[in-house]
Amino acid sequence: MNLALLSAGDLTGDNTARLTGRRRDHLVTVLKASEGDTLPVGLEDGPMGTGTINRLTDEAAELTLTLDRSAPAPLPLTLVMAMPRPKMFRRVLQTVASLGIKDIWLINSYKVEKSFWQTPWLQPEYLRENLVLGLEQAMDTAMPRVHIRQRFKPFVEDELPALLADRPGLVAHPGTSTPCPVNLNRPATLCIGPEGGFIPYEVAKLVEAGCQDIHLGPRILRVETAVPVLVSRLYDPCQ
Amino acid sequence: MNLALLSAGDLTGDNTARLTGRRRDHLVTVLKASEGDTLPVGLEDGPMGTGTINRLTDEAAELTLTLDRSAPAPLPLTLVMAMPRPKMFRRVLQTVASLGIKDIWLINSYKVEKSFWQTPWLQPEYLRENLVLGLEQAMDTAMPRVHIRQRFKPFVEDELPALLADRPGLVAHPGTSTPCPVNLNRPATLCIGPEGGFIPYEVAKLVEAGCQDIHLGPRILRVETAVPVLVSRLYDPCQ
Repeated sequence: MNLALLSAGDLTGDNTARLTGRRRDHLVTVLKASEGDTLPVGLEDGPMGTGTINRLTDEAAELTLTLDRSAPAPLPLTLVMAMPRPKMFRRVLQTVASLGIKDIWLINSYKVEKSFWQTPWLQPEYLRENLVLGLEQAMDTAMPRVHIRQRFKPFVEDELPALLADRPGLVAHPGTSTPCPVNLNRPATLCIGPEGGFIPYEVAKLVEAGCQDIHLGPRILRVETAVPVLVSRLYDPCQ
Repeated sequence: MNLALLSAGDLTGDNTARLTGRRRDHLVTVLKASEGDTLPVGLEDGPMGTGTINRLTDEAAELTLTLDRSAPAPLPLTLVMAMPRPKMFRRVLQTVASLGIKDIWLINSYKVEKSFWQTPWLQPEYLRENLVLGLEQAMDTAMPRVHIRQRFKPFVEDELPALLADRPGLVAHPGTSTPCPVNLNRPATLCIGPEGGFIPYEVAKLVEAGCQDIHLGPRILRVETAVPVLVSRLYDPCQ
């Protein structure tokens, strides 16, 4: 937690807030904070700044806020991702949020096992929890939106075209002939397959919808590594 | 396991091998392979190709090998990394190996807790196991070397200069003024700190030894995300 993310429910006044639960405990046990200390804070979908701890009890930390900065610019990327294995899903969500991606579509694919869709981590409160962890890691406040689409073909035929209307689409697929572009630095839609990759039919459908198939070289990377690699080729994080 | 990595002990003849344990079980339970099927294989620190399953028993898979390709080019990067928290360490090792890094120095830092050095994952057999998993993921055969240095100052003063003699050194540190270069594409030494970062004294020592401090923009990333991001800015994976 490099920043404590505050939601509307945490606010107790115009410039005061009350942290409880995980965030209060993190302050005490990891950051070893005490009354009078300051810490980075941010308001969900709003500005960031610092919080000064006025009172610290067993239940809560009461803060006075100075919110004087904007959150970092969002990445202008729509990520269309085959639903990952539940074991990896939370970590992938946190990673995606920490990279500044704000628009996430979880889709089906032939190699997505049916059981993946049963994971409790897809429930709204757990999605939110892991997105918050990613934002707090990266010091960001803008909450990503997650769209869940359990049928591949209707998504690709009926919804993907709108996501490609004003921006290039890319599908990451090992063994294709076009290398991933570098420093694209403008809005784009990126599709990434499951463990084992999209099957040829799926790649063909994505290309037919308007995506360019691109590769990342000879190494096959796990989704949690491929996403940061793709994002870092396409966008300059220092801009 | 996108490739089964064979060590000398797995070979049973000039072009035959015997897979047991995890790799044999993966063939059967995940890849659903049977006699007559082929799979990608590679010889540790040697060529890659395919293995044909001649015989599959409850204990072993007996393969005939055709090794006709080279492993992907190694990344010409020396990675100097503060020892990660044990919970993350295995995953970081696998990620680093999958990215093609061959020279890894695990060093101490003020924010590395003493207990991190006690983890069993630092024992040679476990280091090897996780490096193998990374190589098998990425379809590579060249085994990385891991150097363990539990004292920061002697490492930086006595050993780091040799790692910087013929190549630039970089230290990733949020808040510095120089952005991470893109497409450096030549040998370099990259230093990356622990959770919470190097302390100013450590950054100063690394800079004094010849490293340039660089940043990745306003977002603070976990080590397991920062490493793929840094590597993908510095090197074109498609070259």
